[in-house]
Amino acid sequence: MAQKPSIPKGTRDFGQLEMARRNYIFDTIKGVFSLYGFQQIETPAMENIGTLMGKYGEEGDKLLFRIQNSGEKAALAPEKGLRYDLTVPFARYVVQHREELAFPFKRFQIQPVWRADRPQKGRYREFYQCDVDVIGSDSLLGELELIQIVEEVYRRLGINVCLHINNRKILAGIAEIIGAPEKIVDITVAIDKLDKIGVDAVNAELVERGLNEEQVKALQPILNLSGTTQEKLTALKTILAGSEIGLKGVAELEEVFQLLDIVNLTLNIELDLCLARGLNYYTGAIFEVKALDAQIGSITGGGRYDNLTGIFGLPGVSGVGISFGADRIYDVLTELDLFPKELLTATQVLFATFGDAELKYALKWAKELRARNIAVEVYPEPTKMKKQMGYADDKKIPFVAIVGGNEMETNTVMLKEMSSGVQQQVTLDELCTIL
Amino acid sequence: MAQKPSIPKGTRDFGQLEMARRNYIFDTIKGVFSLYGFQQIETPAMENIGTLMGKYGEEGDKLLFRIQNSGEKAALAPEKGLRYDLTVPFARYVVQHREELAFPFKRFQIQPVWRADRPQKGRYREFYQCDVDVIGSDSLLGELELIQIVEEVYRRLGINVCLHINNRKILAGIAEIIGAPEKIVDITVAIDKLDKIGVDAVNAELVERGLNEEQVKALQPILNLSGTTQEKLTALKTILAGSEIGLKGVAELEEVFQLLDIVNLTLNIELDLCLARGLNYYTGAIFEVKALDAQIGSITGGGRYDNLTGIFGLPGVSGVGISFGADRIYDVLTELDLFPKELLTATQVLFATFGDAELKYALKWAKELRARNIAVEVYPEPTKMKKQMGYADDKKIPFVAIVGGNEMETNTVMLKEMSSGVQQQVTLDELCTIL
Repeated sequence: MAQKPSIPKGTRDFGQLEMARRNYIFDTIKGVFSLYGFQQIETPAMENIGTLMGKYGEEGDKLLFRIQNSGEKAALAPEKGLRYDLTVPFARYVVQHREELAFPFKRFQIQPVWRADRPQKGRYREFYQCDVDVIGSDSLLGELELIQIVEEVYRRLGINVCLHINNRKILAGIAEIIGAPEKIVDITVAIDKLDKIGVDAVNAELVERGLNEEQVKALQPILNLSGTTQEKLTALKTILAGSEIGLKGVAELEEVFQLLDIVNLTLNIELDLCLARGLNYYTGAIFEVKALDAQIGSITGGGRYDNLTGIFGLPGVSGVGISFGADRIYDVLTELDLFPKELLTATQVLFATFGDAELKYALKWAKELRARNIAVEVYPEPTKMKKQMGYADDKKIPFVAIVGGNEMETNTVMLKEMSSGVQQQVTLDELCTIL
Repeated sequence: MAQKPSIPKGTRDFGQLEMARRNYIFDTIKGVFSLYGFQQIETPAMENIGTLMGKYGEEGDKLLFRIQNSGEKAALAPEKGLRYDLTVPFARYVVQHREELAFPFKRFQIQPVWRADRPQKGRYREFYQCDVDVIGSDSLLGELELIQIVEEVYRRLGINVCLHINNRKILAGIAEIIGAPEKIVDITVAIDKLDKIGVDAVNAELVERGLNEEQVKALQPILNLSGTTQEKLTALKTILAGSEIGLKGVAELEEVFQLLDIVNLTLNIELDLCLARGLNYYTGAIFEVKALDAQIGSITGGGRYDNLTGIFGLPGVSGVGISFGADRIYDVLTELDLFPKELLTATQVLFATFGDAELKYALKWAKELRARNIAVEVYPEPTKMKKQMGYADDKKIPFVAIVGGNEMETNTVMLKEMSSGVQQQVTLDELCTIL
């Protein structure tokens, strides 16, 4: 036999169990999105290369999958590339269709994206993103609703999480206050590592990145901020007293916390001044969600952007969005054994037969059951009992209905419960009741 | 403002209404597949170029979208291409994962495919296919179940259809009987056009394709075959008496019709000897489904193949499958106005407010309603009534709950039904009852 076929590295096939589990995650998330009036859109896998280039930094440009032109243009530079994320196509969509949309526009989008990254554990070249955004309003109700959605999604999935929140304006205020507004990126990159490397290493990195001793000293109250959310906010107001943008960030966070009080949120929320998030289009609140009982990074993240659509010529449209990491959520649910057990029990009963007459008898029963919306299979050939039972086992079908001469005479089937091995002779009505 | 962004030609964005309608089609089809024990799989968008090349004929090879290699290999021949259909990846999947699968393996797959075809009305470069197959059994129960699925899907969608059925073995028998077995492709291509161009033109084409006068004459009883299915089958048995393979094809069709009688199918089925279907991997039954009340080609098609996995080194595994054309089904449902009206009514009620206190009051109500699984939106800013009402109109939200001082005092909302304009003051319980 020839060598087994394979698929490109970094890509995956999803079998029935994986699909059932993935659909469970997507359906749960979609169900919650819908409760808040978010509606689904889809964009093409390919975008014009100009839509994608320059939107993800130099490194991102290198990771774009480009489509070779067809025909005579094959040798020329590619005109199309595969979607790298859902955010840039979303911005493109909003600008292109702005006359047809009702603003504030609330959309969600669940589609694969492609990155020519070096594949490694948990990092794929094709993976799904699951984004929800509201664009066309600067109301902080957007932040509130996304946080409520996070709470409800993880409540339904059974995952204990903590939501970390910060505000980009506070980070800008800090950079301003220590006299290094142009160093905001260096500062955020460094303090983002506080959890991992500790305060001394962060300070060393800050010096390496060009801050002087005085500036690093001025940062210490931020790095050491502790206490309740209210205590942190109060302290911040003192620290940032000289920065208009910093105080604006504090005020926004205070308002979000007030809104959260109104709806009695029970989610763990931590004001985390070291949360920075890499993407530089964020301008207000930023979020990250971590699973409490699993060693994995962020499973959801996002924030507010004031000018995402500006890159396509429509400036000044504020929005806020988050992205659920389906692959990581899948890993957490697997690790904590939280997937519902009955996900793959699609077929309720398999008919096993041992002759043509029995097979035909089974077909009539199957039709009746399906008319009652019960999923049924008829083993396609009268063959050995063992083979038919093995099929039911492999597919985790809970019941097998065995048809023989006696059953046909009495208008019954012999129903075997696969988990217990118990058999009983039942009529069609009795079978419906059991299933 | 800059030029509006656009998407590559032949691709499409799907807005909320289109998505709701597409999901309605997919969910209907999935629901029926599940009743028969078919389970979903997904394969990567990219396949190794060797998996795709040579599987769709010379023309198909030209229409493959190839992915440019990254890094130093950029100038070399592409190693990956985008999925061109779901059949070849399915065959690759079965061979690659054969040790993990329960046979007969019943799978369905709903994913986009890409073809570098010249875009035109109804023909896209990215479109969804919706395939269902059972592989690993040559039982004609497979044919029966697929026909039952066709009946149930179109019954649920409300589309009147006719299923055309034929058998490749009959076509082979005909070629054999007229003494031109090597001309089977020419014969099928020509007689496939009978409906469109008439018998004289078909005969002319047969001559052009190298059949002699005697052979064309021998074909006439086939072209002129009429009467009931039983009459056609009886006539065929006489015509094909000298061809073993031809008689096998007739016997297979007879058995399928007997099975259909057992389950009392009400679907229109026509034995159509001019049905050929282009793809040359079919070896047994072939099907096509046409909508009776719309001028459009085939909306579903498929057939039995005895050696699909042979191309990947696993010969002799028989299967049968069909593919639902989602885009064409969409067009038929649109043309006949058959989409359910309430598809886009996601949000049940919009809260309209005119001040901060009212907004906060609305947030509490919204939380209560969502806890009862009712989809609710709160307009994110206290702004002009007209704007908030316009938003409800645009999103086709059936009710607006208006909150003012009086409502807050009496713990009610003023509920406006948008279709009638009727307003009434209601409590939370009353609101739940109405929704």
